[in-house]
Amino acid sequence: MNDDKNKSMAPSGEAVPKAVVSRLSLYLRELQRLIRDGQETTSSSQLGQMLGFSDAQVRKDLAYFGHFGHPGIGYRCDELVQAVRRILGTDRDWPVAIVGTGNLGTALLGYKGFGHQGFRIVAAFDVDAGKVGGSIVGVPIYDIERLPEVVDQQRIKLGIIAVPGPAAQGVADKLVAAGVEGIVNFAPVTLVLPTSVSQIGVDLAIELEQLSFAVVSRGESG
Amino acid sequence: MNDDKNKSMAPSGEAVPKAVVSRLSLYLRELQRLIRDGQETTSSSQLGQMLGFSDAQVRKDLAYFGHFGHPGIGYRCDELVQAVRRILGTDRDWPVAIVGTGNLGTALLGYKGFGHQGFRIVAAFDVDAGKVGGSIVGVPIYDIERLPEVVDQQRIKLGIIAVPGPAAQGVADKLVAAGVEGIVNFAPVTLVLPTSVSQIGVDLAIELEQLSFAVVSRGESG
Repeated sequence: MNDDKNKSMAPSGEAVPKAVVSRLSLYLRELQRLIRDGQETTSSSQLGQMLGFSDAQVRKDLAYFGHFGHPGIGYRCDELVQAVRRILGTDRDWPVAIVGTGNLGTALLGYKGFGHQGFRIVAAFDVDAGKVGGSIVGVPIYDIERLPEVVDQQRIKLGIIAVPGPAAQGVADKLVAAGVEGIVNFAPVTLVLPTSVSQIGVDLAIELEQLSFAVVSRGESG
Repeated sequence: MNDDKNKSMAPSGEAVPKAVVSRLSLYLRELQRLIRDGQETTSSSQLGQMLGFSDAQVRKDLAYFGHFGHPGIGYRCDELVQAVRRILGTDRDWPVAIVGTGNLGTALLGYKGFGHQGFRIVAAFDVDAGKVGGSIVGVPIYDIERLPEVVDQQRIKLGIIAVPGPAAQGVADKLVAAGVEGIVNFAPVTLVLPTSVSQIGVDLAIELEQLSFAVVSRGESG
């Protein structure tokens, strides 16, 4: 993610660095894993250790949003999961629209991780008349021209753009005009959006760059 | 990215926080954009402004790796691009293998952003006999059993896992045994790897969570 230039606010009114919000997602994953493993409580040092952060880092990150520990117990896993989901906004229902049902769009429609975190893709859009009227994993594919109507009916606030680069800005404009408040953009272009709309740009080459850095710097330091 | 627990080292021997390395990728994108727009020099304040960081942050991040500015000029864009690519390790040729040619693997094979940053996917692997022997965007699809041989012949050091969750660990083990040093994992599972192998786990739901946080906190503060 790299495009949302505005820091967001904690309940205290304090600005929350984006890195803190990223770490909340990681804490959430580890907590969900602990619960699956049958563990009821955890500590900042255990959470930190699982992720390679210090316990002080974990406490400081959570302190932006309140006090979540219990003396002599630490964190109750299920309680902290609920709290983090409330902070991230994933305790509510987020119907999501996806535009583009090529290979990437189809892969995203089949991606189980979204549903696990409360995101429900309810509508897909395409320009290909051969696809419109069909469905992928149960999600109906609509003609892009029906986007305003479907977004309104289904109260869709988040959109995913999975179209080729040259088509992305036009799709973004349609999503914004329809009332979508946040966009995840997989197309390799920078979108121009009103400041009232949040965007996350996914640049998959960044993951490979971070990996090559890890491999190279390991080689040089080892 | 969320799984590589080890901080990497700067040439000075100082540990480089992962967030700094992530920002290097963002600086690189902006510099490449400036060059495409015909701009020859830039400054830490311009770079920072384009990304929503302070100029002090930009200078501090780059200072981990050396001195790149010129008095009275600022940064020469092409010089800084070369420097950042050298730091990230993307100034060299990285032949990459991808395992899994379903929708996600096919989408990744067609993703132009990799090539722009110096990553060349040279081999794809699958278990599906109907796909083996074919190719996608010119990349040959091999039987997974030929992975050790092809990785060795093509000097592949980086692998991308795009198989279903239950198959991911087995694929990772094969990549490691073949000598791959870094893995980007798109499967929604945590891989157990030797500490000598770097990994980046891509959890696409995190992007949506960061977006929902941005939308929710904007709504509450606005």
